[in-house]
Amino acid sequence: MTLHDREESELEFGRVLAFSDGVFAIAITLLVLSIDIPTVPEASNTLPLPEELWDVRWQVVAYFISFAVVGLFWVHHHRMLANLRGFDGTLMALNLVVLCFIALLPVPTELLGEYGNEAWGVWPYAVCMACVSLAMGAIFRYAHRNDLLREPPATPAALRAQQLRTLVPAVVFLLSAPMAFVSPLLATGMWALLLVTRYLIPAE
Amino acid sequence: MTLHDREESELEFGRVLAFSDGVFAIAITLLVLSIDIPTVPEASNTLPLPEELWDVRWQVVAYFISFAVVGLFWVHHHRMLANLRGFDGTLMALNLVVLCFIALLPVPTELLGEYGNEAWGVWPYAVCMACVSLAMGAIFRYAHRNDLLREPPATPAALRAQQLRTLVPAVVFLLSAPMAFVSPLLATGMWALLLVTRYLIPAE
Amino acid sequence: MTLHDREESELEFGRVLAFSDGVFAIAITLLVLSIDIPTVPEASNTLPLPEELWDVRWQVVAYFISFAVVGLFWVHHHRMLANLRGFDGTLMALNLVVLCFIALLPVPTELLGEYGNEAWGVWPYAVCMACVSLAMGAIFRYAHRNDLLREPPATPAALRAQQLRTLVPAVVFLLSAPMAFVSPLLATGMWALLLVTRYLIPAE
Amino acid sequence: MTLHDREESELEFGRVLAFSDGVFAIAITLLVLSIDIPTVPEASNTLPLPEELWDVRWQVVAYFISFAVVGLFWVHHHRMLANLRGFDGTLMALNLVVLCFIALLPVPTELLGEYGNEAWGVWPYAVCMACVSLAMGAIFRYAHRNDLLREPPATPAALRAQQLRTLVPAVVFLLSAPMAFVSPLLATGMWALLLVTRYLIPAE
Repeated sequence: MTLHDREESELEFGRVLAFSDGVFAIAITLLVLSIDIPTVPEASNTLPLPEELWDVRWQVVAYFISFAVVGLFWVHHHRMLANLRGFDGTLMALNLVVLCFIALLPVPTELLGEYGNEAWGVWPYAVCMACVSLAMGAIFRYAHRNDLLREPPATPAALRAQQLRTLVPAVVFLLSAPMAFVSPLLATGMWALLLVTRYLIPAE
Repeated sequence: MTLHDREESELEFGRVLAFSDGVFAIAITLLVLSIDIPTVPEASNTLPLPEELWDVRWQVVAYFISFAVVGLFWVHHHRMLANLRGFDGTLMALNLVVLCFIALLPVPTELLGEYGNEAWGVWPYAVCMACVSLAMGAIFRYAHRNDLLREPPATPAALRAQQLRTLVPAVVFLLSAPMAFVSPLLATGMWALLLVTRYLIPAE
Repeated sequence: MTLHDREESELEFGRVLAFSDGVFAIAITLLVLSIDIPTVPEASNTLPLPEELWDVRWQVVAYFISFAVVGLFWVHHHRMLANLRGFDGTLMALNLVVLCFIALLPVPTELLGEYGNEAWGVWPYAVCMACVSLAMGAIFRYAHRNDLLREPPATPAALRAQQLRTLVPAVVFLLSAPMAFVSPLLATGMWALLLVTRYLIPAE
Repeated sequence: MTLHDREESELEFGRVLAFSDGVFAIAITLLVLSIDIPTVPEASNTLPLPEELWDVRWQVVAYFISFAVVGLFWVHHHRMLANLRGFDGTLMALNLVVLCFIALLPVPTELLGEYGNEAWGVWPYAVCMACVSLAMGAIFRYAHRNDLLREPPATPAALRAQQLRTLVPAVVFLLSAPMAFVSPLLATGMWALLLVTRYLIPAE
């Protein structure tokens, strides 16, 4: 399988981007399916919000968390692919691994929403997102080694910073998985760290 | 995070547009999942339409309302982004907030279809759409303040008119939420106002 | 709302196309949700195909019929929009009507698959597709009257032929609805006529 | 129906590609719906993973298998269409047949995940994918015969190799269907051969 250069075959590169964005867009929209509307009995009709619907609130919270996480990873993915000079079969395969775990996310999101106070409601989500992070780190590593980056990091320090930044989410998610057995809430809280990490490590 | 200019990185701007359009297209199509087809017993077979299916009519009506609302907001969103000169991280985040509530819409639509004669069947829809409107207003405001509009309003009056037009849906939806406790039908009727608002305020 | 010319604002025209194609692609893929896999009890395990799965065959047939119909209409839609010189607010609205009934199609498809031997399992599908056809006819009529066609029909005869061709599906579907009360099978058979119509009327 | 040349009508060719990619992207993401999360009773709360969730593991495995298969076929499809010089109505129809069986895949995937140890849990998947393969082979054959390939195989040997490579998946899937009645596991194992076939036959 030969390298497809971005300029020479813009259409084909564009199709990989469009396919990836499509999977991200569909997966992020399917998250809503993890919210189940219960049947509300007649007797609840006098309340401002029936108890049955109030019970759904954690599923809605899980939806918002998951939407933010997928959105953030889409931005990361968007930037990483924007920086590629071309792609080959290995990158395509690694990209499919990323998409595979992104598309799986509605399942752990439903677990998180319904059993977020149990360890096993939290760690599948953490493992799934760690796999996404590791696959994205592998894309960066492979693209750098095979000289496929448009603007490779200028200095070894910049390279290290960028690699670190790619790995931080993987480390956070992997640490949060055992943490879920101590406290599911604490594990979920660790994910909030991710929103801060882009300020922790100086950007390029 | 730096500003991505539209002309310099058409591809990247295009990807944000495509991702947003994708989420709108998927969310508008998933609205159909809020219509549940009941099992029809054998005895109903002689009627032109069994009673069980006739009961679904309000869900179909809610589907049409919701499709019109999302379609209208897609047109708004389409125009707003067509008028952007570029985008940065903040716009991306605000855009994700818009998409987040658009993608959530199948849930309040299902509530509306099944419990549209109750206050709590109506106000979640109103609140969800008000959030969409407010986030879109924030995009316009931010883009104007940071000089990211392609064709900024020429006069202060034009600016005020445009801001007003962005806020009208938010106001209508926010007012309709408490109105739902007086009359769910009246609240839904207020949304019809939105179809008229583009004639209320002179266009650019 | 002003006319957006195709050449001047290719991006915006492209976004409407992409959005429409997106809705078509999602609706055609969601048709699969109308096939429900039943739970198979242990006792059925010795058969080449358990009876419970064999019962699903009409739903699979309905899926194939519906996929062919949506595919055919996508091709029609594709060509019609490819022939537009530009679009305005009215065309956008008419286009949303087309998409609205296309996106609704998983519901009548499910009815068709489960109750295809009843009149009320067939006529909702016919009515839904007739609405799609009529809206597409309205797009052609409006575009022609407002001089928005790229290659308007050269002669009055060509115009008539093209209008006829747009209306044939609407007529077939509308006639099949009452026909369903005589024989559901015959009504479904009439739809097969559509695959032939492009040979009935000479193409441009 | 006339031939649309790629260069002359890039937009229209692009729309067919985008529509196809859309269906692939949606179908691959809808595979996640074949995983059902069971209700976990209170008593299971002390385990690292409740038994009810552990039972879902084969559905997750089926998801991964199916994701890999669809991903692989998307890459094949991507390359085949990238090599087309243009398209006509027949190619459009054959392409719809490919998409039709790709979009159907969530159904046999669910069967595979839930009844993968039965013959009838495996052969529907094999038949569905064989149809995809045969339709893709038909696209290649038709495009070659009608001189629609951008870079037609230079030598008869290259043509034979390419035709063989297109047919290998069809043969593997067709053979695995009867094999499922001997051993469902063996049939599934045969599919793994597909990941190797690109190394079996020398690439162009």
